[in-house]
Amino acid sequence: MRIAMGIEYDGSQFHGWQSQCEGIRTIQREVEFALSKVANHPISVICAGRTDALVHGMGQVIHFDTTSKRTKRNWLMGGNAYLPNDVNIIWVSFVNNDFHARFSAISRKYQYLILNKKTRSSLMCNRATWIHQDLEINLMQDAAKKIEGEHDFSSYRASGCQAKSPIRKMHSIKIKKRNNFVILQFHANAFLQHMVRNITGVLIEIGKKEKQVGWAREVLEYHERARGGITASPEGLYFEHVEYPPEHDLPCGHGDFPFSLDDW
Amino acid sequence: MRIAMGIEYDGSQFHGWQSQCEGIRTIQREVEFALSKVANHPISVICAGRTDALVHGMGQVIHFDTTSKRTKRNWLMGGNAYLPNDVNIIWVSFVNNDFHARFSAISRKYQYLILNKKTRSSLMCNRATWIHQDLEINLMQDAAKKIEGEHDFSSYRASGCQAKSPIRKMHSIKIKKRNNFVILQFHANAFLQHMVRNITGVLIEIGKKEKQVGWAREVLEYHERARGGITASPEGLYFEHVEYPPEHDLPCGHGDFPFSLDDW
Repeated sequence: MRIAMGIEYDGSQFHGWQSQCEGIRTIQREVEFALSKVANHPISVICAGRTDALVHGMGQVIHFDTTSKRTKRNWLMGGNAYLPNDVNIIWVSFVNNDFHARFSAISRKYQYLILNKKTRSSLMCNRATWIHQDLEINLMQDAAKKIEGEHDFSSYRASGCQAKSPIRKMHSIKIKKRNNFVILQFHANAFLQHMVRNITGVLIEIGKKEKQVGWAREVLEYHERARGGITASPEGLYFEHVEYPPEHDLPCGHGDFPFSLDDW
Repeated sequence: MRIAMGIEYDGSQFHGWQSQCEGIRTIQREVEFALSKVANHPISVICAGRTDALVHGMGQVIHFDTTSKRTKRNWLMGGNAYLPNDVNIIWVSFVNNDFHARFSAISRKYQYLILNKKTRSSLMCNRATWIHQDLEINLMQDAAKKIEGEHDFSSYRASGCQAKSPIRKMHSIKIKKRNNFVILQFHANAFLQHMVRNITGVLIEIGKKEKQVGWAREVLEYHERARGGITASPEGLYFEHVEYPPEHDLPCGHGDFPFSLDDW
């Protein structure tokens, strides 16, 4: 049978979701280890979207196949008992064999959290990207509006990105400020490698007034990564949510970091 | 000259503010090491309130004396450069010699953060205390109201507490719920050792309906620690703010964990 799960993780002590290298700590390895213990046979999982080193997961989704019969509660409690403190299962759902964590997904949300103040913050270390220059969020909002929609995002993908097509549909980029925080929420059908961090890097330059508002769109139209901006650092990035067709009837809960823009 | 500073820290990797033992990692030791480097002579600091192992600081205040002449910016930037990621200086103020971080304080605020949901959260690990049973916050609020005011808090102090008097004035205990979080904010003229954690332990039992609302007041009136409740665990506790007489003109900023009840 096929099982789907929601997964939350603090990425700060991980080398990302997966790695080709042996002996490196990855989220996938921890999750597969824990679920294999519960199943009592080896489990391989597939995730909705792989995340880089230091990136956090609020609402990652996985699926896997198993021959073991366990209740949802046993999968949840047993899995969490074998997982270290920095990864946990949020929910468990029994799904049809046509469900696929990656290919069934309709859309994804990422959020990027910036701490915008003069001095660094130890309580937000590894949880937000610290920018000490003032950010003008109305400029960032204007720039973001100009790259919403369906586009060739070649300028905003990593040079090593292996996706076949660079076309993605960005449903929305929302930006809000609260106290010393700026939060960006990206909603798209799917994302290219480093796409959120590359767009955020450009929006930060615009927010600092080092570039004009129109620059985000200019970069987009180059269709060339070499003419893009810098890649924003990973520690402020959260994989927030994956949307699936309603017939799969998956729980919509996500992890408990209170920075979801939807809550503000 | 005398200098005051606001200090923020993530307490999860510390054995508290200070320790009698050598070779143990404490916040005081890190702060004194960094400031001694900036001053170029040994610095000893005094804090507004010592915190236990794993307890966090949003608005700790210290003072120290130095013969070195540095600008506020030099103290701030230099100190932060020598401090590890989990401690930082928030503000610096030059004060008169009659200022004392502990004895000049008029009142203090602590907050206690509870994650109240069925499953644990890796993103909130070490940042909130996880209670999986439903908490009825209206019961907790009613119980808290009954111990506000000036009282002998002997039942709520640690057995080893060395304060001369057990009398403290609790100005307010505010409790709010938001999403999966319950936050308690305690405002008092001063606190006894473990006072916040001991009161919180009693309020949690009441919120779980394992004890009646009146129990918080009953415990208070025993004047005897042995008849109190359990001590709530340290990881949800934040030292939020210290109030001083306005003539010292200190900055009121505190650290950037967005859970301050005042922001909700």
